[in-house]
Amino acid sequence: MRYPPIVPRFPHILHGGDYNPDQWLRWKDTIWKEDMRLVRLAGVNSLTVGIFSWTALEPREGEYRFEWLDEVMDMLAANGMAAVLATPSGAKPAWMSRKYPEILRVNDRRQRNLHGERHNHCLSSPVYRQKVTAINTRLAERYRNHPALGVWHISNEYGGECHCPLCQERFRAWLKARYQTLDALNEAWWTAFWSHTYSDWEEIESPSPLGENGLHGLKLDWRRFTSEQFVDFYLHETAPLKKITPDVPCTTNLMGTYPGIDYFRLAEVLDVASWDSYPQWTGVDDTGLGARTAFMHDLTRSLKDKPFMLMESSPSATNWRPVAKLHRPNVHMLQSMQAVAHGADTVQYFQYRKSRGGPEKFHGAIIDHEGSEHTRVFRDAAAVGERLKGMDAIVGADTPARTAIIYDWQVRWSLDDVKGLLQDKTNYEETVIGHHRAFWKLGIATDIIDSTRSFDKYDVLIAPMLYMLRPGVAERIDAFVERGGTFVATYVTGYADEHDLTHLGGFPGPLRKTLGIWCEEIDALFPGDENSIVWAGKPYRVFDLCELIHGEGAETLAAYGGDFYAGEPALTVNRRGKGKAYFIAARSGDDLLDDFYGMIARDAGLERAVEGPLPWGVSARVRDNGEQKFLFVMNFTHEPKELTIAQGEKMSLAPFETKIVER
Amino acid sequence: MRYPPIVPRFPHILHGGDYNPDQWLRWKDTIWKEDMRLVRLAGVNSLTVGIFSWTALEPREGEYRFEWLDEVMDMLAANGMAAVLATPSGAKPAWMSRKYPEILRVNDRRQRNLHGERHNHCLSSPVYRQKVTAINTRLAERYRNHPALGVWHISNEYGGECHCPLCQERFRAWLKARYQTLDALNEAWWTAFWSHTYSDWEEIESPSPLGENGLHGLKLDWRRFTSEQFVDFYLHETAPLKKITPDVPCTTNLMGTYPGIDYFRLAEVLDVASWDSYPQWTGVDDTGLGARTAFMHDLTRSLKDKPFMLMESSPSATNWRPVAKLHRPNVHMLQSMQAVAHGADTVQYFQYRKSRGGPEKFHGAIIDHEGSEHTRVFRDAAAVGERLKGMDAIVGADTPARTAIIYDWQVRWSLDDVKGLLQDKTNYEETVIGHHRAFWKLGIATDIIDSTRSFDKYDVLIAPMLYMLRPGVAERIDAFVERGGTFVATYVTGYADEHDLTHLGGFPGPLRKTLGIWCEEIDALFPGDENSIVWAGKPYRVFDLCELIHGEGAETLAAYGGDFYAGEPALTVNRRGKGKAYFIAARSGDDLLDDFYGMIARDAGLERAVEGPLPWGVSARVRDNGEQKFLFVMNFTHEPKELTIAQGEKMSLAPFETKIVER
Amino acid sequence: MRYPPIVPRFPHILHGGDYNPDQWLRWKDTIWKEDMRLVRLAGVNSLTVGIFSWTALEPREGEYRFEWLDEVMDMLAANGMAAVLATPSGAKPAWMSRKYPEILRVNDRRQRNLHGERHNHCLSSPVYRQKVTAINTRLAERYRNHPALGVWHISNEYGGECHCPLCQERFRAWLKARYQTLDALNEAWWTAFWSHTYSDWEEIESPSPLGENGLHGLKLDWRRFTSEQFVDFYLHETAPLKKITPDVPCTTNLMGTYPGIDYFRLAEVLDVASWDSYPQWTGVDDTGLGARTAFMHDLTRSLKDKPFMLMESSPSATNWRPVAKLHRPNVHMLQSMQAVAHGADTVQYFQYRKSRGGPEKFHGAIIDHEGSEHTRVFRDAAAVGERLKGMDAIVGADTPARTAIIYDWQVRWSLDDVKGLLQDKTNYEETVIGHHRAFWKLGIATDIIDSTRSFDKYDVLIAPMLYMLRPGVAERIDAFVERGGTFVATYVTGYADEHDLTHLGGFPGPLRKTLGIWCEEIDALFPGDENSIVWAGKPYRVFDLCELIHGEGAETLAAYGGDFYAGEPALTVNRRGKGKAYFIAARSGDDLLDDFYGMIARDAGLERAVEGPLPWGVSARVRDNGEQKFLFVMNFTHEPKELTIAQGEKMSLAPFETKIVER
Repeated sequence: MRYPPIVPRFPHILHGGDYNPDQWLRWKDTIWKEDMRLVRLAGVNSLTVGIFSWTALEPREGEYRFEWLDEVMDMLAANGMAAVLATPSGAKPAWMSRKYPEILRVNDRRQRNLHGERHNHCLSSPVYRQKVTAINTRLAERYRNHPALGVWHISNEYGGECHCPLCQERFRAWLKARYQTLDALNEAWWTAFWSHTYSDWEEIESPSPLGENGLHGLKLDWRRFTSEQFVDFYLHETAPLKKITPDVPCTTNLMGTYPGIDYFRLAEVLDVASWDSYPQWTGVDDTGLGARTAFMHDLTRSLKDKPFMLMESSPSATNWRPVAKLHRPNVHMLQSMQAVAHGADTVQYFQYRKSRGGPEKFHGAIIDHEGSEHTRVFRDAAAVGERLKGMDAIVGADTPARTAIIYDWQVRWSLDDVKGLLQDKTNYEETVIGHHRAFWKLGIATDIIDSTRSFDKYDVLIAPMLYMLRPGVAERIDAFVERGGTFVATYVTGYADEHDLTHLGGFPGPLRKTLGIWCEEIDALFPGDENSIVWAGKPYRVFDLCELIHGEGAETLAAYGGDFYAGEPALTVNRRGKGKAYFIAARSGDDLLDDFYGMIARDAGLERAVEGPLPWGVSARVRDNGEQKFLFVMNFTHEPKELTIAQGEKMSLAPFETKIVER
Repeated sequence: MRYPPIVPRFPHILHGGDYNPDQWLRWKDTIWKEDMRLVRLAGVNSLTVGIFSWTALEPREGEYRFEWLDEVMDMLAANGMAAVLATPSGAKPAWMSRKYPEILRVNDRRQRNLHGERHNHCLSSPVYRQKVTAINTRLAERYRNHPALGVWHISNEYGGECHCPLCQERFRAWLKARYQTLDALNEAWWTAFWSHTYSDWEEIESPSPLGENGLHGLKLDWRRFTSEQFVDFYLHETAPLKKITPDVPCTTNLMGTYPGIDYFRLAEVLDVASWDSYPQWTGVDDTGLGARTAFMHDLTRSLKDKPFMLMESSPSATNWRPVAKLHRPNVHMLQSMQAVAHGADTVQYFQYRKSRGGPEKFHGAIIDHEGSEHTRVFRDAAAVGERLKGMDAIVGADTPARTAIIYDWQVRWSLDDVKGLLQDKTNYEETVIGHHRAFWKLGIATDIIDSTRSFDKYDVLIAPMLYMLRPGVAERIDAFVERGGTFVATYVTGYADEHDLTHLGGFPGPLRKTLGIWCEEIDALFPGDENSIVWAGKPYRVFDLCELIHGEGAETLAAYGGDFYAGEPALTVNRRGKGKAYFIAARSGDDLLDDFYGMIARDAGLERAVEGPLPWGVSARVRDNGEQKFLFVMNFTHEPKELTIAQGEKMSLAPFETKIVER
Repeated sequence: MRYPPIVPRFPHILHGGDYNPDQWLRWKDTIWKEDMRLVRLAGVNSLTVGIFSWTALEPREGEYRFEWLDEVMDMLAANGMAAVLATPSGAKPAWMSRKYPEILRVNDRRQRNLHGERHNHCLSSPVYRQKVTAINTRLAERYRNHPALGVWHISNEYGGECHCPLCQERFRAWLKARYQTLDALNEAWWTAFWSHTYSDWEEIESPSPLGENGLHGLKLDWRRFTSEQFVDFYLHETAPLKKITPDVPCTTNLMGTYPGIDYFRLAEVLDVASWDSYPQWTGVDDTGLGARTAFMHDLTRSLKDKPFMLMESSPSATNWRPVAKLHRPNVHMLQSMQAVAHGADTVQYFQYRKSRGGPEKFHGAIIDHEGSEHTRVFRDAAAVGERLKGMDAIVGADTPARTAIIYDWQVRWSLDDVKGLLQDKTNYEETVIGHHRAFWKLGIATDIIDSTRSFDKYDVLIAPMLYMLRPGVAERIDAFVERGGTFVATYVTGYADEHDLTHLGGFPGPLRKTLGIWCEEIDALFPGDENSIVWAGKPYRVFDLCELIHGEGAETLAAYGGDFYAGEPALTVNRRGKGKAYFIAARSGDDLLDDFYGMIARDAGLERAVEGPLPWGVSARVRDNGEQKFLFVMNFTHEPKELTIAQGEKMSLAPFETKIVER
């Protein structure tokens, strides 16, 4: 299957990055000129402009200066490049903060910020919204027909929150719409606990270390509200763009599993998903990080279920990391190809040219302060550019998957805030990534979805630690199993409903029948302590959390090896309808998950990217444009590897090498 | 000796816990009904109600709703249960915070809190005090003759502090009453240091990280004042209760060694002491924690020198611990019996039924979210209930002790704040617990008193790190020795007077003659460094703090083994009058304390609970009702144990087992 | 060469310390009298008075009380002592804070402090400045002709910062003077990054965690401004003193490498440098700490390039250290003689007598709370007093050095704030101290200068991590090499200009020709990772930071041993003019620096204090009065040492012993 290219009429993998010519307005004759000479040498076909240009575009209130941007856009067009054009709302001018101090954010201690940094504006502020509309409208009008205009880049890395009086008002309005009555809210938040019952909507305040910080329902709804604020603000930002340039796709650059926004919700309003990927490669054995990055790519791709944009990545050191390590040889190619393998149709960097000052002046860039093409980093980027030139056939190609893993922001919010279990080590995100890693090692493609998405496409559905069951989810899982699906759940499943109220009548609540078990208690283990699950005679180490369960129809596949619950069930399967529902009762290392998902894969007949087993640290992914399949094989270690692609077809890989073969 | 039962006309050990039917007002027919069915199965004879019920009782200002509580009290009466009835001041309604914002606490940075959490009210606020009086009066009037009413539970876990202008005023008034003149205050606080001399009472402010934080006299008096605020507030809360229901005992649930309140001072106004005990049992070798919990029980019992209430404990996991571990088999019985062994006449839990929402929804409870009697935790609690039914003879029984250990809040305040020695590792509390542990291992009962209590009952008096000598204490210790007592002091004794002004003329100040030594200097050791004390040819490791002393009449029993003070005295005894005063100059491990107190016990003829030596991890305590003695023998380890109770009388204990035998 | 004595007409090494008789006004007959009896026994010839005496001198606004100070000064004079007389501005009276709250500091979150602690006043406040002038004028007038007056001690340990509106105004004014135009400021701070361009001076605010915290140019200028505030305040404080007592030297006690003030800048206005030295001696092997303390002494001496004052040191425990360890035997003599060896003409303590209360009551003092001369600490101090009596010939003696090491506050500010490299482990200070230590081990004297000082005196110039090249520095270094000097630079050199804007065209920027290399990239290593430099066949471990360089005329002396840059140059020398410029590309342990500087020393013919090699932990320094040379040989370990002073002349040292021999 093949999706249309992200930028209509530009059927190439985009290669480029953030570009800030407005930092070099005094050096047009030298720096700008060099910049354009070097794009060709680097194989760059796209640049992202205008991200933090508000003061350059509107140096004083109502005084707009588009001339320099006209020149930049023209340069890009002259070089046949696609511009990713940003709205500037990520950082506002100092004059605006001074004239309209109400646009500055207020923190959870109710202190209003001073001007500074970025993302320091209240999303509720009518003035700020009006200023955003004004400049976005002008941008859209000015460049609506510009040949370079390819994609709208909305703001930059949305995030944070505001507790100002305007936001408190909006929060209360949002709650009223959600609950209708205070009684309903009081019951949903279980406010009778500690005498928290509200008798007037005005009594409700956002969570604060100086006030209420323990009411889970309030905190959960505050996170939902904050998340919705971004959806609303995005719609506000894009309204003029959609009106004036309806055919230009809009996106905003996401940040993997950034916890502040439910990206599955935000994705509903994006045209294309994009993200900023900054793995801290060690250059030694990067298997774990390779798998983790693969998860993030799979997640971002699944948001829109089609090719995505790698909007930012570092061509060298990431300066804000505690250790700003250089990329080893081959690593830059590897990280770029991995993104494409997982569905990216762009390889973009922060940044094209290093700034001379400011907090990111030592961040990797294609063009260093030194300024020439004669650096190792430039050559690495140029090699990527060269390779991408030959990959037009991959643009829009699908990444087919029959397995989905659930990663759900609202579950994460609940578990991040849980009081109980191992509250500082609940590790929801790491747990989901661990389950995904087992498939990554097997060379089996997976989608990452949240619990609200359809399960129809899938044969295997994995839901690690599905603590919260949002409305209808249990029913849809049960139907999935009934119609023949393979479902896997783990400890800490089905404890709570969407309000974080526990289910009565025995965990896993509405999934008790589906899984055929009752979870009576859960034991938390001290760091360093362990138990085991003995499966087919082999003991696997388990730790952190061990649930004590009773079979109610499910078959016991494996039991605990120790402690007072030795011999009790620890791994079960319930046959239901045409399907099976598995339950893993304790947290384990990779060994159990590898063996378990190996069995599941065989059982469900899931296709692996290569025939032979994948050596440690080697990843294999396929992109399929409906006519051709492209197999990406990537070595995430510092050692050479050998593997079997298909019967009699061997492949060897140098350290960190990527090979791409058509199948 | 036998004390009267806590609840007159209810001569049983109370078994029950916190109960919040106001969270289930919509489910009276189901949940409330089940609750009453299950009390019988669990052997529960008491429930604590109304703790956080202010909004349920007064949903709007002046609108009272007692009907639901009437029903609850009637249900308890109908089931023959004793109600522990709480005043609701631990958490106030949101409407009150909104209408009277001055009742909200102000933190030490002078920020007024928002509404939220609990214990977030200013104790000085006239409005808050008036609201408390109003509701407490109504409660007392309504239930004065109710057959269920057993004990008044005042508020909940008093704690915290407030720095609002009203509290500043009260603090200054308290200081004026204490010092009369500014000159006296200036000298007591030694304000000439760093030019801190006050020239007007209005210049005095409570300690703050934004202001004064180094003046020890100020900080000490602030702690005293805060502590007195709670005494005063308790008297305010109980005034209507005492007037209307003079025969119903009042208590408030304490928290072991919570540093914010001098419990010996607060205990003066309580009718009975009670506390909330939440040890984090590991289920492996819990010897250290068993001894620590024993110390807390002994402390709480000694506050009123009579049986106390175990007001809260967890029947299973304690959800707010970093690791919410389950109780191993036998552990719940063990923790319950340990309390009784040390003088508790109640075994109560937080909580009877788990709440569905809120920050403690995963805290252990007799009735789980699942809701039935068919859980391990329910069976554990029911077993305790069953055993307690047979223990009426223990109600009011004494726990006789001839040894007292001094734990003094005001010493702790001084040492927690000391600048010098090992300021972050002064470890006063741990040191006192360490000395207590030696007696626990010997099976010898001890009281825990502060330095203001009478020493008359005792033959042996231990005062670890008695840094501060409050007025008259040195004289009373000296008299204790003169009349034949055995006194033990350690390093860091007698440095300061009640104002934290150092004694001039050589440490240990007024105890120099009693102990027959001069402490010239004290050496602090780096973590991991050690020295030794060589006693009777055996070297004992010492660390942290080593005092360099000179004998002035005292006999040297042991000397330092190393460093530049090798051979200098480290353990001394001074014979004075009919008694002896020992001095231990350095911090040691258990080995030295075990051997030393073994010698002291033999020398003073202290009686041990059992004849044979106690194996590691086994504790033995006696309760004596004047006619019968009940020996509790408890195994705090995961291994079976054997011991000799008396000549030819052996006992064996399973892991974590408790045996009780009449002697 | 010989400098005049610090106190004219007092040609002795000063021995004494801080003295606070105003804490003992009620005890004149006892305490004051004892104090004067004990000065003779302790060999004390100087006391520092009045440091925190403002409330004693001005208990109410405008009411001055000098009578007690008259008595003190007279006592000192009667005992032939030199008074170090302090201005009291280090801590202001409470009445002043209450009447003029605007004098209280405002922190970076814009909260105004409450009264308390010390150094809690705004340096911009006109009222505070006026109060300081008033009291300083009175002090100077009253004691202008007093025979005891020796040195003015201005305030105490200047430090901190204030963000109040007055300071914001002064900051903006300072910026206007510095940059003239906003355009110049915007370019210098590279504000186009993240849209930070200022369009009005009033938009500029000092850095804040609530506002701007990432703009390096702003933060750097804020540090410069804060530093200049102290210079300005010092000039304000000393103006009346200079007018009334022009011949009395003024100083303020510095704190080694305290980062808040550029001491090289402040030193320009001091008459004599002084500092407070509080090494935490372990009493075991104190080699590292001995070298570090030597660095601080060398730095303080170099500030004025003449003998300095050891204004404070502890004669025993330093109470505010986490571990308040006692001095082992000989250690107090050692630390005192080390200061003199490095150019101190005083040995002074905090404090002469311990205070009874306050946060420093357990700090070491000559006179303990016990009060007599019969303590170990008193005897230690008296022994120092006795030895110093025989050292009049050393007063004013030079400490000649041909080598200078650059330690530059402005480089430190940049590197402390760098985003990149190893941002939390940039370790500029430790790196410079490491290079200094190599010379300390060789027994070669060094000065410590900043990059603005003249290099004329020196033959060898070491500039570790000279990240920032302030104006003219590169040119002066180049000239230094051209005229025959030996220059040593390291990784992270020449990255930025004085605004922290990076140099374009290749690092090390303006030093590229001088060093004959181009630094293309820098690799940061994870903790525990390492590489090696192989020099003359010997591998030396390198870690943290490894720069990848290319020779451009420089000769490669050593290459990397591993990683993808194995074999690339790592140690180079460029011959230029009559001199040589060395470059060390990676961070190493002492072994490489010891061997490297051994070679440099031989090559440059640097003189060592003794002929034979110095054993581990032994330091040797010379003071030269032009006629005699005094060799100090000091053992910083707990083991005896032997060494060869000159041909056939051996010396042995007991643990921590100091020997002084005339050469």
